[in-house]
Amino acid sequence: MSTLDDPGTPFLAVDAAVVRANADRLGKHLDGLGVTLRAHVKTTKSVDVAALLHDGRPAPITVSTLAEAEAFAAAGYHDILYAVGIAPDKLPRVLALRDRGVDLTVLLDSVAQAVALPAGVPALIEVDCDGHRGGVQPSDAPTVAEALASVGAVPRGVLTHAGESYFADGDDALRAAAAHERDRAVQAALALRAAGFEAPVVSVGSTPTAHFATDLTGVTEVRAGNFLFFDLVMAGIGVCTVADLAMTVVATVIGHRPDKGWILTDGGWMATSRDLGTARQRVDQRYGLVADLDGTLFDDLVMADASQEHGILAIRAGGTAALPDLPVGTRVRILPNHACATAAQHDRYHVVAPGSRAVHAVWPRIRGW
Amino acid sequence: MSTLDDPGTPFLAVDAAVVRANADRLGKHLDGLGVTLRAHVKTTKSVDVAALLHDGRPAPITVSTLAEAEAFAAAGYHDILYAVGIAPDKLPRVLALRDRGVDLTVLLDSVAQAVALPAGVPALIEVDCDGHRGGVQPSDAPTVAEALASVGAVPRGVLTHAGESYFADGDDALRAAAAHERDRAVQAALALRAAGFEAPVVSVGSTPTAHFATDLTGVTEVRAGNFLFFDLVMAGIGVCTVADLAMTVVATVIGHRPDKGWILTDGGWMATSRDLGTARQRVDQRYGLVADLDGTLFDDLVMADASQEHGILAIRAGGTAALPDLPVGTRVRILPNHACATAAQHDRYHVVAPGSRAVHAVWPRIRGW
Repeated sequence: MSTLDDPGTPFLAVDAAVVRANADRLGKHLDGLGVTLRAHVKTTKSVDVAALLHDGRPAPITVSTLAEAEAFAAAGYHDILYAVGIAPDKLPRVLALRDRGVDLTVLLDSVAQAVALPAGVPALIEVDCDGHRGGVQPSDAPTVAEALASVGAVPRGVLTHAGESYFADGDDALRAAAAHERDRAVQAALALRAAGFEAPVVSVGSTPTAHFATDLTGVTEVRAGNFLFFDLVMAGIGVCTVADLAMTVVATVIGHRPDKGWILTDGGWMATSRDLGTARQRVDQRYGLVADLDGTLFDDLVMADASQEHGILAIRAGGTAALPDLPVGTRVRILPNHACATAAQHDRYHVVAPGSRAVHAVWPRIRGW
Repeated sequence: MSTLDDPGTPFLAVDAAVVRANADRLGKHLDGLGVTLRAHVKTTKSVDVAALLHDGRPAPITVSTLAEAEAFAAAGYHDILYAVGIAPDKLPRVLALRDRGVDLTVLLDSVAQAVALPAGVPALIEVDCDGHRGGVQPSDAPTVAEALASVGAVPRGVLTHAGESYFADGDDALRAAAAHERDRAVQAALALRAAGFEAPVVSVGSTPTAHFATDLTGVTEVRAGNFLFFDLVMAGIGVCTVADLAMTVVATVIGHRPDKGWILTDGGWMATSRDLGTARQRVDQRYGLVADLDGTLFDDLVMADASQEHGILAIRAGGTAALPDLPVGTRVRILPNHACATAAQHDRYHVVAPGSRAVHAVWPRIRGW
């Protein structure tokens, strides 16, 4: 049996039991609210990780690329939402999937996109809820639906995403973001119904709002993706604790600069990504927190800086702990700021159980577009 | 023949003629200084791109991962420097390459690493020149060399890297960084020679110092990698102009937010990386400049923000140009901040000629470690 001491560093370790616990927590919450989860696979990009969600049974999913759609379709997933505004030159791949029996729904927010759709393709209309991305105002949704109907495409409903929730400060702000996301989506659905469209799908979601929603009346499905792994940005917002982080980067100590208080590793930004998402939060974790190979955090130690293949571990600004004694060759685990970005730097996961170094599986990730 | 209108976006376009011109410029400069180029392949990670350097003939290279070393060895490159401090558990792969006849040199800066080396393995001793990474002080190099000799490993010389040069402000500062980098390396080599070691290799380099060095007396080789592609950080430092950028991200317009002055594309941070390296420079280019598919820049247009698969194009802060009219489906090219980080988000290059949309080759990139 391989262990975390064996693979060449840097690499990703994923604790499957933590993933399952994160999945259970959100699943129970959404069950209580009477809505379906349509998990977003953009963070984990792994059929094997997704199988932890519903005991391996294919379920409705959201994808961020057609490459994800194609890989999940090949694995038996047949209810797929491609939640990035559709570009017309991607339609041949959409049709190829639909011809294989996949119920692939696209997303759009303009008449130009709507009239480019082939007949029979279902689309959700993107609705803006907080000015962070695309989307029409709820009252403009019927115009897009009429354009869809005019070419024989299928206006299936509405979608919104509370991008603002990633910047929310405190539980009240998160609950308000979730309520606002629901309100905007439901408003748009009501506008569609008033115009004679059925709008059976009312889709909302982000990892923060999915966890903080208290009433999703009128919503039919919730999208969330980050929640399976979580990360320091989510912990900083208060959606999870650091103990809920399921994915870490394993790196090896390659040097020391006692004059600077540095421990150098072979895990640079190529292994963690350039994401410094906690820099805008109350506690800046720099490139991440640092644990030993068994997962125990070192007090006040952060990955303070990075070049392409070098990480610099140091006591955080204002930290009082002593720099730990980590000889050359010691392996450590970096807890990342942003699981989506860190995972994207790697091609596979090494799967472990809590507190164990045994690697019981290696799961591939989906790459590219 | 495929063109830039054909591949699914986002993808990378590389202009091979610009790469060749960048290679020629540095080659001539280093020829004039009487030193050898040991190109760093960490930016381009492509045997095909490296072949533009020396008319396809294998030449000395620097690598940042053993995966690069293995791929280049398979392509006939036999003089390879692995320029990240060696971790003992990577030695089996080092020895496997050496057993195949590859003259692979490792890097280290401690007695602990030195005494872990098997007999016969050559090593450069990393010397700190400006406090940005690892490395011993020049006067401490003999201690590491003695440790190498004690186990029968081969102290081949010294290496330093002017990490500070990426933050240099102006030509005088760049020339000073280059002179300092040389001075520190030569000091260390002299210390080794005074202690009875031959130190045949004196290796320096970074893309900024390689271009701004005016006297490399005592240096035997220069390392640089970014210079083949260049990027907006290098243009901001003054090492190149924006016209010298050889690599761009091609993305497609997927929406508009006239109320916000935004054009949305399908090129998010997954396509560009999270690198905001120009944020610390005089001109913050955000996620990059924007050109049309033929390479003509749009005035004042930047990729202002990004989520995973969405880019937001907008007129830069203080810009006076009008937002261009780019309908849904229009393809644009994003000029990146940091070529190393942006290229790492992709698995291949689409190779074009200047001012042409014809794709005359698709070249794979080396991934992982």
